[in-house]
Amino acid sequence: MAQTLPTKDAYREYTSKMQQIADVRNAIAVLGWDQETYLPDKGAAFRGQQITTLSTIAHELFIAPALGDLLEDLNSRTDLDPIAAKNVALSLEDYQKNKKYPALFVAELSKTTNECYHAWINARKEGNYAVFEPVLSRMVDLKKQEADLLGYTGHPYNALLNEYEKGATTTMLDTIFSDVKNALTPLLRSIEQRTQVRKDFLHLHYNRDKQWAFGIDLLKAMGYDMGAGRQDISEHPFTTSFSPQDVRVTTRIDENDFGNMTWSCIHEGGHALYEQGLPAEAYGLPSGEAASLGIHESQSRLWENNVGRSLSFWQHHYPRLQELFPDNLKIVSLNDFYKAINQVQPSLIRTEADELTYHFHVMIRYEIEKGLLEGVYSTKDLREVWNQYYREYLHVQVPSDTQGVLQDIHWSHGSFGYFPTYSLGSFYAAQFFTTAQQQVPGLSEQIAKGEYRTLLEWLRNQVHRHGRYYTSNELCEKITGKPLDFKYFLDYATQKFGEIYGL
Amino acid sequence: MAQTLPTKDAYREYTSKMQQIADVRNAIAVLGWDQETYLPDKGAAFRGQQITTLSTIAHELFIAPALGDLLEDLNSRTDLDPIAAKNVALSLEDYQKNKKYPALFVAELSKTTNECYHAWINARKEGNYAVFEPVLSRMVDLKKQEADLLGYTGHPYNALLNEYEKGATTTMLDTIFSDVKNALTPLLRSIEQRTQVRKDFLHLHYNRDKQWAFGIDLLKAMGYDMGAGRQDISEHPFTTSFSPQDVRVTTRIDENDFGNMTWSCIHEGGHALYEQGLPAEAYGLPSGEAASLGIHESQSRLWENNVGRSLSFWQHHYPRLQELFPDNLKIVSLNDFYKAINQVQPSLIRTEADELTYHFHVMIRYEIEKGLLEGVYSTKDLREVWNQYYREYLHVQVPSDTQGVLQDIHWSHGSFGYFPTYSLGSFYAAQFFTTAQQQVPGLSEQIAKGEYRTLLEWLRNQVHRHGRYYTSNELCEKITGKPLDFKYFLDYATQKFGEIYGL
Repeated sequence: MAQTLPTKDAYREYTSKMQQIADVRNAIAVLGWDQETYLPDKGAAFRGQQITTLSTIAHELFIAPALGDLLEDLNSRTDLDPIAAKNVALSLEDYQKNKKYPALFVAELSKTTNECYHAWINARKEGNYAVFEPVLSRMVDLKKQEADLLGYTGHPYNALLNEYEKGATTTMLDTIFSDVKNALTPLLRSIEQRTQVRKDFLHLHYNRDKQWAFGIDLLKAMGYDMGAGRQDISEHPFTTSFSPQDVRVTTRIDENDFGNMTWSCIHEGGHALYEQGLPAEAYGLPSGEAASLGIHESQSRLWENNVGRSLSFWQHHYPRLQELFPDNLKIVSLNDFYKAINQVQPSLIRTEADELTYHFHVMIRYEIEKGLLEGVYSTKDLREVWNQYYREYLHVQVPSDTQGVLQDIHWSHGSFGYFPTYSLGSFYAAQFFTTAQQQVPGLSEQIAKGEYRTLLEWLRNQVHRHGRYYTSNELCEKITGKPLDFKYFLDYATQKFGEIYGL
Repeated sequence: MAQTLPTKDAYREYTSKMQQIADVRNAIAVLGWDQETYLPDKGAAFRGQQITTLSTIAHELFIAPALGDLLEDLNSRTDLDPIAAKNVALSLEDYQKNKKYPALFVAELSKTTNECYHAWINARKEGNYAVFEPVLSRMVDLKKQEADLLGYTGHPYNALLNEYEKGATTTMLDTIFSDVKNALTPLLRSIEQRTQVRKDFLHLHYNRDKQWAFGIDLLKAMGYDMGAGRQDISEHPFTTSFSPQDVRVTTRIDENDFGNMTWSCIHEGGHALYEQGLPAEAYGLPSGEAASLGIHESQSRLWENNVGRSLSFWQHHYPRLQELFPDNLKIVSLNDFYKAINQVQPSLIRTEADELTYHFHVMIRYEIEKGLLEGVYSTKDLREVWNQYYREYLHVQVPSDTQGVLQDIHWSHGSFGYFPTYSLGSFYAAQFFTTAQQQVPGLSEQIAKGEYRTLLEWLRNQVHRHGRYYTSNELCEKITGKPLDFKYFLDYATQKFGEIYGL
């Protein structure tokens, strides 16, 4: 029947089906947001079941043969405009991928994810990886099955990487992390030779409510629309979107660590600006979705690091911060503060790592995930493998599981293949920001005045409004004229840390 | 195929389908809770669409012919235990009723409900009923259609009443409200002859945070499990349940009205105790659902009025309240406080009305709803009709729509037929509480010590654990040995207010 419909009507039917699926997925996102912000303890079991049921429904809606037929039909038509044609092609690709997941597998994955998340919470409470391991082991088995279901060329991990970053492979990532190791290790070693900068004043007592207020002010200054979002507290900061008109961020506050809240706030704010900048009229369609996780991360990293850890940024915000916390910061100069927030120091926790050593944290997770998929590592050995990598790459001893193998939420969510997008994001960010500096006259001066409107417009125009129309690499070439090149990050890091450490 | 299944397996299949439907409905409830607590303004439109989509899905799941066949099959079997048999019979009844709703009507109702809610919010902001009227008019039309779809004997309003209180009719309610008018009017008039009690000190400044803390303490004292629920702030207080393990209440705080938060807190707490007391193992089944709205309301009213507005209750809580607000209450005696919170005074706002005049508020809404369904009233006349009723029954002039026809959320939700259950609830509560006083030795003394465990156990045992197994009237007869009888409320009110006003 679909074949007889005029293209316009067939496309409208496709849009309507996609919006329905988006509604269910966004409902799942609301349930997930609530789970990590306000859910009472005892509500966890039924909530898990509710999310599982909705996941099954979303999956069934998306693998409905009628949708497949409609997509095949539309994909064969020649009178769609380029965006519509791309939407149909991407949805068909998604459809064909989703068809590979049996409903039982989806339900099992959702159920295990819920159990895994709660095992992770409990394991962290007890500070014992062994509490997490049995469920994680089942999760890894499911991920191996998933790789087989999806199919891959080369390494099975490629199947999972592709879920987050279309086109990413172990070959590509082995090269990038080899660059990280070869180029960043000497920079790190030369920094270690210099006198370390002070940052003790960042660990004085910073009042919770004042930190919260400062964070909200930063989000607003960045251009985050509080009428189309909100910030709450959760164990692990995240951004979630229920539509471009309702994009929420969370943060956490440590009264003895000024940075914890601040960087999560700017980071999640960067993600949220991307989601708020996606075209609302394309709700449910690929053109209304983010390009990839790597591009998503480029937005958070650009704001967090290239903007948020720059001297210009704090020229504007530091006086206000000194006002809020005079006891801690009155006697600290802007320059000393700037150096402190950019201190390079190998450490234990990824989310608190500096811009340089951060990529070693990611590399370790990448090696571990690849090894788990290959079967070279077993979840039983993971504590030891983890601790060994930290000794080798970062020269640190891991004193507890909470500060080691249990620190990230990702594996508990089944997100294997996600971590590498963090490094890709930083490298895209460096390349994009360099381009923005060339294309936006007086960008540094604007940042120094706390004005980000032109930068945000540039990002909206270059990145946000395109949705998934371009792949990561197409987008990168379109914006910067070149494919992803690690040298932009290396140049940025070499110059910035060279100045800070007087290299 | 279902016919060939052993009863146990068929019943398990039924349970599984019902749980899936419950999961979707509870997801809708989460989205609704978020809508009224934390949703950013701009998120409203997409949220409405998401709720509509899930409502359609829940509806489609519940009218699936396979479920109908299974229910017919199970209903014809003779080897189900009584609870299972009742579950099947009730689900079949629900199924047959749901079959009467076309999917388009469900979607239209959900969409209109969302628009109506937002029109109500806006109308209240502007204090202008005219902003609400056009959408309300469409809602009333839909409700008339709904009555026709459902079918009825006698008055079309009976179809809607039945949605909230199975078996309720205009004949029954005309009798009850005639009792209210005939018996309560003379009591009210004789109170008006007496010297009015003081309550000005309830309208001094009561700090928001201290009120919040006091409310949370009351909820905990009542036995509300904070590990299986939480309280938040909303425009209009409500209780919502996502499972017996996650039952949430909301409240609102007026710093110049001590009662506003306190009574909503105890009232919603009573609802929440019922929901938390439903058998979790019957999740998704009628035996895991509340008996009716009238019985639900009996639980909130019993706690709010029979317990919460008693002298015994405040013997325990008043000293703490005096401690929290010494400037306001140090010089106010317990007895004067008790009289103040029980002041009888015709007024404008239903939710702030005293126990006596409250039923006149309900009667007015009942008359209006009946009239709208009959077509005797039009939404266009509603402001005038409303104001006229208030002059006639309560001798008050309505100064603004916000304090008049716009005060309740119910019509914006399409809840026509709901209001009468409030009065039924109070009358059931009086009858139940009289029975509890006979069956629980030393109940007043326990209440005077702030101990409600025995009372809660009695309610759990007599009411909560039965779910929907009994109808309201069956339950009432089982607990009290008699059908609902207005005289219990009249006796309670005559004695209580006789003492307070020295009649």
